[in-house]
Amino acid sequence: MPRQWYNILADMPGAPMDPPLNPATKKPMGPDELAALFPMALIEQEVSTQRWIDIPEEILDVLAIWRPSPLYRAYNLEKALGTPARIYFKWEGGSPPGSHKPNTAVPQAYYNAKEGITKLTTETGAGQWGSSLAFAGQFYGLEVRVFMVKVSYEAKPFRRLLMETWGASCIPSPSDKTDVGRSILAEDPECPGSLGIAISEAVEEALKREDTHYALGSVLNHVILHQSIIGLEAKKQLEKVGDYPDVVIGCVGGGSNFGGIAVPFAYDKINGKDLRILAAEPAACPSITRGVFAYDYGDTGKMTPMLRMHTLGHDFIPPSIHAGGLRYHGMSPIVSKLVEEGIAEAKSFHQRGIFDAAVLFARTEGFVVAPETAHAIKACVDEAIQAKEEGKEKVILVNASGHGHFDMNAYHQYFENKLEDYEYPEENIRKALEALPKI
Amino acid sequence: MPRQWYNILADMPGAPMDPPLNPATKKPMGPDELAALFPMALIEQEVSTQRWIDIPEEILDVLAIWRPSPLYRAYNLEKALGTPARIYFKWEGGSPPGSHKPNTAVPQAYYNAKEGITKLTTETGAGQWGSSLAFAGQFYGLEVRVFMVKVSYEAKPFRRLLMETWGASCIPSPSDKTDVGRSILAEDPECPGSLGIAISEAVEEALKREDTHYALGSVLNHVILHQSIIGLEAKKQLEKVGDYPDVVIGCVGGGSNFGGIAVPFAYDKINGKDLRILAAEPAACPSITRGVFAYDYGDTGKMTPMLRMHTLGHDFIPPSIHAGGLRYHGMSPIVSKLVEEGIAEAKSFHQRGIFDAAVLFARTEGFVVAPETAHAIKACVDEAIQAKEEGKEKVILVNASGHGHFDMNAYHQYFENKLEDYEYPEENIRKALEALPKI
Repeated sequence: MPRQWYNILADMPGAPMDPPLNPATKKPMGPDELAALFPMALIEQEVSTQRWIDIPEEILDVLAIWRPSPLYRAYNLEKALGTPARIYFKWEGGSPPGSHKPNTAVPQAYYNAKEGITKLTTETGAGQWGSSLAFAGQFYGLEVRVFMVKVSYEAKPFRRLLMETWGASCIPSPSDKTDVGRSILAEDPECPGSLGIAISEAVEEALKREDTHYALGSVLNHVILHQSIIGLEAKKQLEKVGDYPDVVIGCVGGGSNFGGIAVPFAYDKINGKDLRILAAEPAACPSITRGVFAYDYGDTGKMTPMLRMHTLGHDFIPPSIHAGGLRYHGMSPIVSKLVEEGIAEAKSFHQRGIFDAAVLFARTEGFVVAPETAHAIKACVDEAIQAKEEGKEKVILVNASGHGHFDMNAYHQYFENKLEDYEYPEENIRKALEALPKI
Repeated sequence: MPRQWYNILADMPGAPMDPPLNPATKKPMGPDELAALFPMALIEQEVSTQRWIDIPEEILDVLAIWRPSPLYRAYNLEKALGTPARIYFKWEGGSPPGSHKPNTAVPQAYYNAKEGITKLTTETGAGQWGSSLAFAGQFYGLEVRVFMVKVSYEAKPFRRLLMETWGASCIPSPSDKTDVGRSILAEDPECPGSLGIAISEAVEEALKREDTHYALGSVLNHVILHQSIIGLEAKKQLEKVGDYPDVVIGCVGGGSNFGGIAVPFAYDKINGKDLRILAAEPAACPSITRGVFAYDYGDTGKMTPMLRMHTLGHDFIPPSIHAGGLRYHGMSPIVSKLVEEGIAEAKSFHQRGIFDAAVLFARTEGFVVAPETAHAIKACVDEAIQAKEEGKEKVILVNASGHGHFDMNAYHQYFENKLEDYEYPEENIRKALEALPKI
């Protein structure tokens, strides 16, 4: 298991990364301003340009519960596709919460506890991140409060129960616990909630209390840093079998699992290696392929720091596709920058196609993946078919970010032929982009 | 990973194991009679007294998807209990279906396919076994038909969807597909079904067709043989860290995961080693602690071979506890014999207590276990507390047979204080035992 994280900021080509801006003043935010939300260790990691950062023993001990995660050669899938490609998948679904999310939840909980914080707040959509932070918090004695989008809270009780089993409290958002929540409920008592509202509630609680911080499961630089362990392990594992990828694939919502597997290979590409790094995003929320690269807010309440990233606009409301983890208007600034610099590329995929690929994967490789992960599997299948058509050997590395045991209803709808493909109309995207803040 | 299974029949003390009897004639069944249900390779394994049996490459390839399974030291649980005991748990929840069941589903599917069988039938209660056979069947091109107890089919759609995702068909039982099903439906169209009825339906279908066999996920000798891989791995893994268990623990329903972890250690005990081997069963279905050791049928329809085992009687109807996998009237003849010979022992546990232990385990070790597995965790916690009270060092090895991601509703009921402890009344047990066949 790697004992250091890899920090791509040490090697990022082009102009330096743009700093986060204060959402009120639109001025660059210093560490002191960010300290109301995050512990100093994470703020330092957020801006550090040190290439290798040591992973503390107390974090390694917990990561060792499920890491190193296995890398598999997908022989059966290759055979079913009749492709000359060699397909490898990194399986992140074996962690107790069932996804890659605890790779960053654990260090975030650790650094907060170390700095005397006793309570963490966060938001969650489908519940993968909320359950991962609940899991992580207990190892360091932290109270975890998760604001869960109300419609998910009611429709998906199992992930909520998982959080409660790990001792966290889970609050349907909008709630009467915060000013933001109360004002929204006053206007619309039946409001189903959204990720943007839930973020605003979690941030408000963290800002109000000295003993409380906020934790974010994706997007930020320190999250990609922590997730780099996926790519570092995969690289070592491939070395052992004497292989190296021609294409590295991950799905993207906020960019954390893709960033995690990508950055060690991005380092190689920056240093002259010839390979492709491909982000698979949903056609229903295509922040890289159809958004713009600009400063934007992270939430609808405009309370989070502003980041320069690929965005569909903070007012963008994605249709309710099953890959709840990919329904976010913004994209990790690191992933955005990698795309802008030509290191990474993106493709978008429709719902029905990704489930075709996920079912094929389940019936060949055995693992039933989450709908988010299914995007990466679909991109992988397309690459493998292309390799067959071109008669080319090709090595494909794909990050299988999580299992789908909590998402069987999505498979049900697929089998019942009830899934819809949703192309976001040009006009809606234009409108959402018009609301971008002027910098 | 072990390349051979260990067969305890080579070393079982006492009189030879009693043979299965024909349910109609009550005469010992020869291989030819069993061949209507099982492939010859499995029938040979069922009666073999060869100590080590090679695992074919084609099986090892599939088992390698998740095996060897990890062995963890439960440092956090030890700390929380303040015990001097060293606790190790073997984690079987990482397999694609989430339990130990595919350890035998894969070889069963392989041997059937190798002998030209194209279709397997089976029954399932909560769905762990049905989903495991669905998973296994696809690797060898087998059609899998699962009769699922109707009340579970309706209440637990997620495991059913898992089976369908792996290409199996899942039929609510009683069904109109079999004579048994039709006759039951004629009497009671609203019949909620039972495991005994579902077994009868699956067996009937297998008996009727040349190309079809039946597969059983527990109880039988060849199942324990395949599951021995758990104990063999655990022994090697403990050797690596220089430890050896004072007590080996598993939960028991039909006996497969307990038998699997127990038999390699039972071998040591038979050869003079001093250790305890402890089966944890539900107080609501206490086949070892309150049943008798006698010949009985495996199903309500009296269609299966009769086995000499611990049983509560084939008419026994257990209350609907959440550990659906432990609601079976009988017990593996091998496990029963180990108890009779004084090699293994059993204790029974109530529902609320096992969830206390499971929640403690989740909050210390991170894994949310299935209600079945929670019985083993509870037994382990009790042993660790006893070690503390006695001020004794003790090494505890516990088999954590599966994850609880499909069972969050049971945790919900626990948190809501809605679980009931159920002590089976002496009179009901006496009545059920009166129905035992006379041999």
